[in-house]
Amino acid sequence: MYVVLVYDMRAERTGRMLRLCRRYLTHVQNSVLEGEISKGDLERLRGEIEDTLEPGESTIIYELSSDTLLDRTVYGEDPTEDSRFL
Amino acid sequence: MYVVLVYDMRAERTGRMLRLCRRYLTHVQNSVLEGEISKGDLERLRGEIEDTLEPGESTIIYELSSDTLLDRTVYGEDPTEDSRFL
Repeated sequence: MYVVLVYDMRAERTGRMLRLCRRYLTHVQNSVLEGEISKGDLERLRGEIEDTLEPGESTIIYELSSDTLLDRTVYGEDPTEDSRFL
Repeated sequence: MYVVLVYDMRAERTGRMLRLCRRYLTHVQNSVLEGEISKGDLERLRGEIEDTLEPGESTIIYELSSDTLLDRTVYGEDPTEDSRFL
């Protein structure tokens, strides 16, 4: 399936969540990752996220069947097009 | 259709984008909004976003057909459950 993941962490802890999520997904914007993921990997990722989050922090995972994302449009600068997030 | 919108603005300009997007969508996390929107409203919102963005800022809009969002799971504190974003 295809997932879009958005996290909201305390500023000094964003790097930790980003490193975790990047093992499974592609970083597309400041606190947003997306990509194809297997059910098994998604379960692992969910568990690791729950272990990582502290009070006041949150993560939303949108699960989509792969063929139902109608469109994805980036306005402004597309961070995936430059080296900002490499 | 149903859209998920994620913005990445300079810190001092996030309020402006939030106010704009809130006229059409529901605020669900720090820089994330979602909701049902008509094609006409989506076109208006796209135009207003493009007018608002400055260099280095970006917004991603995911368009989904309304019945195909398989799951949406919030880990950690769900900001829609308290008054933090009201």
